[in-house]
Amino acid sequence: MKLFRWGPVGAERAGVIADDGRRLDASAVVMNYDPAFWLDGRMEELRELARSGTAAEVPADARLAAPVARPGKVVCIGLNYRDHAAETGAAIPSEPVMFMKATTSVCGPFDPLVLPPGSVATDWEVELAVVIGRRVRELTEAEALEAVGGYLIMVDYSERSWQKERGGQWVKGKSYDRFAPLGPWLATADEVPDPQALALELKVNGEVRQCGSTADMIFPVARLVAAVSEFMTLEPGDVISTGTPAGVGAGMRPPRFLRPGDVVEATVAGLGAQRQQVVAAGR
Amino acid sequence: MKLFRWGPVGAERAGVIADDGRRLDASAVVMNYDPAFWLDGRMEELRELARSGTAAEVPADARLAAPVARPGKVVCIGLNYRDHAAETGAAIPSEPVMFMKATTSVCGPFDPLVLPPGSVATDWEVELAVVIGRRVRELTEAEALEAVGGYLIMVDYSERSWQKERGGQWVKGKSYDRFAPLGPWLATADEVPDPQALALELKVNGEVRQCGSTADMIFPVARLVAAVSEFMTLEPGDVISTGTPAGVGAGMRPPRFLRPGDVVEATVAGLGAQRQQVVAAGR
Repeated sequence: MKLFRWGPVGAERAGVIADDGRRLDASAVVMNYDPAFWLDGRMEELRELARSGTAAEVPADARLAAPVARPGKVVCIGLNYRDHAAETGAAIPSEPVMFMKATTSVCGPFDPLVLPPGSVATDWEVELAVVIGRRVRELTEAEALEAVGGYLIMVDYSERSWQKERGGQWVKGKSYDRFAPLGPWLATADEVPDPQALALELKVNGEVRQCGSTADMIFPVARLVAAVSEFMTLEPGDVISTGTPAGVGAGMRPPRFLRPGDVVEATVAGLGAQRQQVVAAGR
Repeated sequence: MKLFRWGPVGAERAGVIADDGRRLDASAVVMNYDPAFWLDGRMEELRELARSGTAAEVPADARLAAPVARPGKVVCIGLNYRDHAAETGAAIPSEPVMFMKATTSVCGPFDPLVLPPGSVATDWEVELAVVIGRRVRELTEAEALEAVGGYLIMVDYSERSWQKERGGQWVKGKSYDRFAPLGPWLATADEVPDPQALALELKVNGEVRQCGSTADMIFPVARLVAAVSEFMTLEPGDVISTGTPAGVGAGMRPPRFLRPGDVVEATVAGLGAQRQQVVAAGR
């Protein structure tokens, strides 16, 4: 099943993609895909709605929002593809590298990317992200995928100079508003039988910059979820983004970063496609 | 005015300290000090309640919770006191060092500290923390304190081996459950005319380990709030913790860390006192 959210910022509501592909309003079943949703058992009613198709269609021009309402945390994995670690000059990590993005950076999959004021090095990273469906801690790798509620695309936008040259930890360069577009939909876990067999691609202005596969992850999704759950409790709605393959702007010779007018398109197989128009700060 | 929350985990409600010092239930005025509270204008009704004292007293044995309901983010400042930077062997930062704690690490000021499984280096850090009262971004230092809703104590517990020896970013060692006790109360900003003149102290088993003053911060609170707001939007209820003075366990020769049975007591002038009993993992 594919879940999405739609409507203006601050007034988003739930939607479900019908079996025939139409985008249906699901707010008669559940108002929002918030942390409580994952615990409340409405999933079967949503499946019935998707099968029957008996709900109003979402207007074709409606804004799509992030498929999950404000998560409690956005945990990201760094350097989880060998080719990306190599292009950044970093060593292959011996265990998953973790960092956080501010939850205020979450936005819809087609919202414009507004560059930060003074940005000199805003970069792209297409990633497979998981949404947690249960409250869990200290999972084993064997049980970790049972805690995953669904999968979606995240672009982990990063201001590299803020990330690396402003003192201390990466969070500075990872947290600006709209640096975490999610969607266009969340595929429930049953739709992704093997999260290690998904093609990822990102284009800038139509040119392919990243082209990889989750098969090339250093640590697979199950290991990542288990690893994060060692260090913190995971809650329903939390997002874990699993790292990016090679092809980021910082890895190009010379490096290339985003400028106003650029268009970023990101896809992960089975999870749809995002598109962001890049606009200057203050717009 | 001093605000607190009380009640069992998951069922906390609002309280206010009356002008005569009694702890009053405030749930007739506001159910919870959540992000919406900071915007809804009930502050004057709470002040009247504190003045009149006309509400039920909170039972003396009630659990005290964190004075703010689950914040959207907990941003911490590293190495913000010269003596602490020196004891860790770090250079004096040229601008504020930022990192995140998982919001799931927030707990009440007297909740026991449960050591993480396998912990070898769980350490203490007493800090002055601020709670944001408005939605803001890109503040100047001159306007930053207007965005502060209140002040409280936070102990920034840290598992040093997870923080520094497990690959990558500090968040791993900062995010375990109960690693961010807040309280016992939040003092609204009007109660703290000068946040740069507050004594801080932390004791372990009655011995003073940290004894400092916010006068010794490298970057003052206003600068910190402005700096964070450059990198991310701040929302009502967000917590920014402002760093710790010298005297952490990692800085002792030889280093000393917390063990089951230890008792940690932390105070910041005007903001009350916390106390945590340290217990073994799995208890």
